[in-house]
Amino acid sequence: MQKTPIYLKAVTLKSINDISNIKNDAKKQMIIILRVTPLAHKDVEELRKAIEDLYNYVQSSGGDIARLGEERVVITPSSVRIWKGIE
Amino acid sequence: MQKTPIYLKAVTLKSINDISNIKNDAKKQMIIILRVTPLAHKDVEELRKAIEDLYNYVQSSGGDIARLGEERVVITPSSVRIWKGIE
Repeated sequence: MQKTPIYLKAVTLKSINDISNIKNDAKKQMIIILRVTPLAHKDVEELRKAIEDLYNYVQSSGGDIARLGEERVVITPSSVRIWKGIE
Repeated sequence: MQKTPIYLKAVTLKSINDISNIKNDAKKQMIIILRVTPLAHKDVEELRKAIEDLYNYVQSSGGDIARLGEERVVITPSSVRIWKGIE
């Protein structure tokens, strides 16, 4: 058990400008559940870039990332692994 | 940092019989993202009982539980707190 808890935060991706805040939360070892549909409905290409950016960030930081249904993406710090077979 | 990672698992609640497996995962200190809509569409009263059961379990184990949109419920072990303002 670690002393300080890990936080789990639900956030909404409305624009590619939200990415820096999301990365800051990820740097604080937060688990982020990201609702991507608002940006998906606005600009699919921008969503693609945003997800690619987050994917590269997560890869380099040793975290994990996975789709959660149609609406959400989960991002974890290196202390949290996403179970295989996530739907 | 702890040595063994925490796991995050996405599971679907289809019946009240799934509750014992979910509690077993929670006992293993897993974070569970539970899609509740399949049971919600089948039997709202059974869903209500299942959520109440999980809520009481989480309360007694020092974990955290929160709704995530219309479709999902998040359950965390005591080492993970859910950020206030979760949507």
